[in-house]
Amino acid sequence: MYRAPVADIAFTLKHVAGLKSALDAGSFGELGEDLVDAVLEEAGRFATDEVAPLYKIGDETGAVLKDAAVTMPAGWKDLYRRWIEGGWNGLSAPEEFGGQALPTMLGVAALEMWNSAAMAFGIGPTLTMGAVEALHKHASDELKAKYLAKLVSGEWMGTMNLTEPQAGSDLAALRSRAEPAGDGTYRIFGQKIFITYGEHDFTDNIVHLVLARLPDAPAGTRGISLFLVPKFLVNDDGSLGPRNDVFCSGIEHKLGIHASPTCTMIYGDGFGGAAPGAIGWLIGEENKGLACMFTMMNNARLAVGMQGVAVAEAAYQKALAYANERRQGKAASYTGNGMAPIVHHPDVQRNLLTMKVLTEIARSISYSCAHALDMAHVSEGEAAGHWRDRANLLTPLAKAFSTDAGVDVASLGVQIHGGMGFIEETGAAAYYRDARIAPIYEGTNGIQAIDLVTRKLPLGNGQHVHGYIDELKAVAADVRASNRPGFGRTANLLDRALADLTEATNFLQARLADGGQAAALAGATPYLRLISLAAGGAYLARGALASEQRQPLCRFYTENMLGESVTLKERVLGGAESLAEAGRALISA
Amino acid sequence: MYRAPVADIAFTLKHVAGLKSALDAGSFGELGEDLVDAVLEEAGRFATDEVAPLYKIGDETGAVLKDAAVTMPAGWKDLYRRWIEGGWNGLSAPEEFGGQALPTMLGVAALEMWNSAAMAFGIGPTLTMGAVEALHKHASDELKAKYLAKLVSGEWMGTMNLTEPQAGSDLAALRSRAEPAGDGTYRIFGQKIFITYGEHDFTDNIVHLVLARLPDAPAGTRGISLFLVPKFLVNDDGSLGPRNDVFCSGIEHKLGIHASPTCTMIYGDGFGGAAPGAIGWLIGEENKGLACMFTMMNNARLAVGMQGVAVAEAAYQKALAYANERRQGKAASYTGNGMAPIVHHPDVQRNLLTMKVLTEIARSISYSCAHALDMAHVSEGEAAGHWRDRANLLTPLAKAFSTDAGVDVASLGVQIHGGMGFIEETGAAAYYRDARIAPIYEGTNGIQAIDLVTRKLPLGNGQHVHGYIDELKAVAADVRASNRPGFGRTANLLDRALADLTEATNFLQARLADGGQAAALAGATPYLRLISLAAGGAYLARGALASEQRQPLCRFYTENMLGESVTLKERVLGGAESLAEAGRALISA
Repeated sequence: MYRAPVADIAFTLKHVAGLKSALDAGSFGELGEDLVDAVLEEAGRFATDEVAPLYKIGDETGAVLKDAAVTMPAGWKDLYRRWIEGGWNGLSAPEEFGGQALPTMLGVAALEMWNSAAMAFGIGPTLTMGAVEALHKHASDELKAKYLAKLVSGEWMGTMNLTEPQAGSDLAALRSRAEPAGDGTYRIFGQKIFITYGEHDFTDNIVHLVLARLPDAPAGTRGISLFLVPKFLVNDDGSLGPRNDVFCSGIEHKLGIHASPTCTMIYGDGFGGAAPGAIGWLIGEENKGLACMFTMMNNARLAVGMQGVAVAEAAYQKALAYANERRQGKAASYTGNGMAPIVHHPDVQRNLLTMKVLTEIARSISYSCAHALDMAHVSEGEAAGHWRDRANLLTPLAKAFSTDAGVDVASLGVQIHGGMGFIEETGAAAYYRDARIAPIYEGTNGIQAIDLVTRKLPLGNGQHVHGYIDELKAVAADVRASNRPGFGRTANLLDRALADLTEATNFLQARLADGGQAAALAGATPYLRLISLAAGGAYLARGALASEQRQPLCRFYTENMLGESVTLKERVLGGAESLAEAGRALISA
Repeated sequence: MYRAPVADIAFTLKHVAGLKSALDAGSFGELGEDLVDAVLEEAGRFATDEVAPLYKIGDETGAVLKDAAVTMPAGWKDLYRRWIEGGWNGLSAPEEFGGQALPTMLGVAALEMWNSAAMAFGIGPTLTMGAVEALHKHASDELKAKYLAKLVSGEWMGTMNLTEPQAGSDLAALRSRAEPAGDGTYRIFGQKIFITYGEHDFTDNIVHLVLARLPDAPAGTRGISLFLVPKFLVNDDGSLGPRNDVFCSGIEHKLGIHASPTCTMIYGDGFGGAAPGAIGWLIGEENKGLACMFTMMNNARLAVGMQGVAVAEAAYQKALAYANERRQGKAASYTGNGMAPIVHHPDVQRNLLTMKVLTEIARSISYSCAHALDMAHVSEGEAAGHWRDRANLLTPLAKAFSTDAGVDVASLGVQIHGGMGFIEETGAAAYYRDARIAPIYEGTNGIQAIDLVTRKLPLGNGQHVHGYIDELKAVAADVRASNRPGFGRTANLLDRALADLTEATNFLQARLADGGQAAALAGATPYLRLISLAAGGAYLARGALASEQRQPLCRFYTENMLGESVTLKERVLGGAESLAEAGRALISA
């Protein structure tokens, strides 16, 4: 079973993603390594001892809907109670409302552990923290006073209500509507689908953030407003009032994360005898709801990226343990009696190392993104802008690369288990099932790639990305300067990958500038992978420079996998025309 | 829902894999295109209209075990009856025992269709045909007379009993034992696991082929014999006699192919009141069981490869249909009203084209393997040897590349469906679940790669593979000679991939010759993918040369995907040392 890899996580936070230098520079005030280590240790203990043992029952029984109420798997409600009692919900939340205001890096590291232990558990509080962030930034003082402390403590949970049947990736097509009631409140009507933790028995109240259109709002995305719609209305003294007209009409039967209730929510249908029209309060300005929601979405994207890291880590641990246990055949490196543990077979080693490397790279990118968020938070002026750009640049990488890695690693994990991998009881297949949602939700990975190319490459007049690449190149130079033979051909191979990346970046920026939007869109997905793999090489090298025992993994990666940059660059530079031509034949007449 | 792509299948059989020239040369006697087309058409109709509609109930209810008896999903028993009445079971079986003796190519094409329609259905008869082949080649005339006709007609089904808990990939560890009864029969004792269709209600009798050890047999693989153990003993008049002491004690709860019962079989335990000791008959010579079983296994490997092709085809069809239906956002190429069908988005096109190309390549390789089997069957002397070598070379490619493609394509299929892809009702997730077993069973893909490098590269004194590569190079030359601008950079890119392949082949052959076994094993998996991708490019080009409308897909492939050959070659040539070094750290103390 999963054991939180606290030492690995701490190492990557500190020595790869920048936490150590930030702590040393006093960027986070009094915060020192001791507290960081203690928090990670304790989060690791809770994830390992409390969350992970409830994974299986969550997968097997799932969330159950009856009469518009969702019952969570046995033991999960109590788990959630202990979890919020531990203060985990408010780890990075504002102190003003009871949070601990620790850096996002720590929040993200803990999030990885909850998700490794049980992804269906980890996803719930992620939504709550998104709601906290949106309310904190955009809501009126009155709404904040009423809701924030309870969302920060975890006494109530929050949700994000965006998707409708006709409006998934394209929110311009939203139809839910909000009518002003004349008393400052609104009545919300409409149907939302795929609402994660839209209904459950963890908490007495649930605070829904809902996108809807006001009457006469402009069409498209500029006519969308954000509303707060509580499951139970809240009295002025904070006690619960009447039931609001928002109900769960169905939950999905999904491939994975069975314990996460994915709800269809009906607003304003007078369901269950409630007064028709769900009562809601406007968050932020009218018709600016999407901007408010994007606050949540960016953090949610990094959080989903952590799910990719998390499931990859869990799948890797399971496969590694099995490979050391299961014996089949003979192997040159095995000198013991009987059959060799399969970990001795080179092909099994290749699969395991591929899993480990993808996990480490995804973790490094995601933590680096969290680091940029933290630095933006504690910086001012130009420095803050720089770090905001960096976080914006890395968010699509953290989301898309990590979640693709989650699927690939979980699939290799099944493979290493052989026939046992296909048997549900073994548990490897469950990771393969869970992992599959992460490349889809919070913006499909294709959309992340488009975001990267069309919105992130232009940051800082197109210079920010080159500054990032220069930092990666400096790592390659450090590898060369280290003169360590154990790095093998790492320096040269990193140089090549980063040259490929520079060339591809220049190409896409030129296409964006000269109206070659189609070529830029065609190259987006291979470009996202290219920048991730090149950055990954530099991150692995940075880790190896800090700790020599990490050198073999870095060398394995650069000598066995980084060559993919050649293909990816070719795809970006020369693939668009044939893609467009062959693509036309796919379109039905 | 799946519709058999009869025209695509016929095209690939005839113009890519060699059936047309073989028919024209009269290699299959009277057999002409008319009959080929009629058989494919009718198989396509049956798969589309009869099998596919029962897929969902098979996935949802699965096979159910009660009191050692397995009940198949509603409608499946009747489906099987209609299927054998159509004569499909004996399509490629010997005429002497009631089969139609049609070329393996046709059998394999039909097999693709059954598996696309329902993989859990397609796998059952595959085992029967393996049993037919093993009995036909190795069994005594008496056993043949008693069993073959009924197995060919499908009145009875057959199974392969190899795996035991401690003996999966490594059959040397088998423990099941067979004791001579003194009357020419044997008593079999032991436990077998993962027995596909080990028990079911399709047929009145089930004929198990079982590997077991005779008393005092040598240790390891040279002490294994093959036995025929019927579920019911068979009287001399062909009627069923007493129940034999072989019982199903459990079926697995699996990730996918739920309707395929995966059984634990208990031999000789006196279960159910049977006389202890399962009565069995020796097939072939004592201690030569593995050789007999390999007859079955090679065909089973190609058959499993077809499952990869099949699930990829089905997943592609579903994703293509959805992409033409689902509308989200705007796209440059869409001039209609409202949101564009997502098939207009370049990134969706890239995913769909990747799916299509992987499917076509897997199909081309697998059909080419079947063609080689057919040609070996109708040839004599040196020619027969050449074609046997070719089939042997292509079998691991057909198995491993196709089944990896099945997983990758099914995963992309889920992705194209967005959130709906994760909902079981949609059906995309079921392909992702089903596909995952194929890279594992009948020899994991890692073992296929080892087989390719250590047993197939040496064929014909190491020259056979180079002859094959020369044929692929001739296709590249034909592309260049065609002078068609629509091929884009295909000729050059094919040349590069084939040069990479030649270099990697030479490298591995040199390592095998100079004792560098470890480097050869380390490079096996990337080499298998390299030869498959390079061959795939040549097959796509051959198709495009025969039909210009196939040119854009070929060009998309060579300009967007074939560049992977560069990485793969580097991995083979330069990856072993760092793999071994990093791999050591994986081994538990």
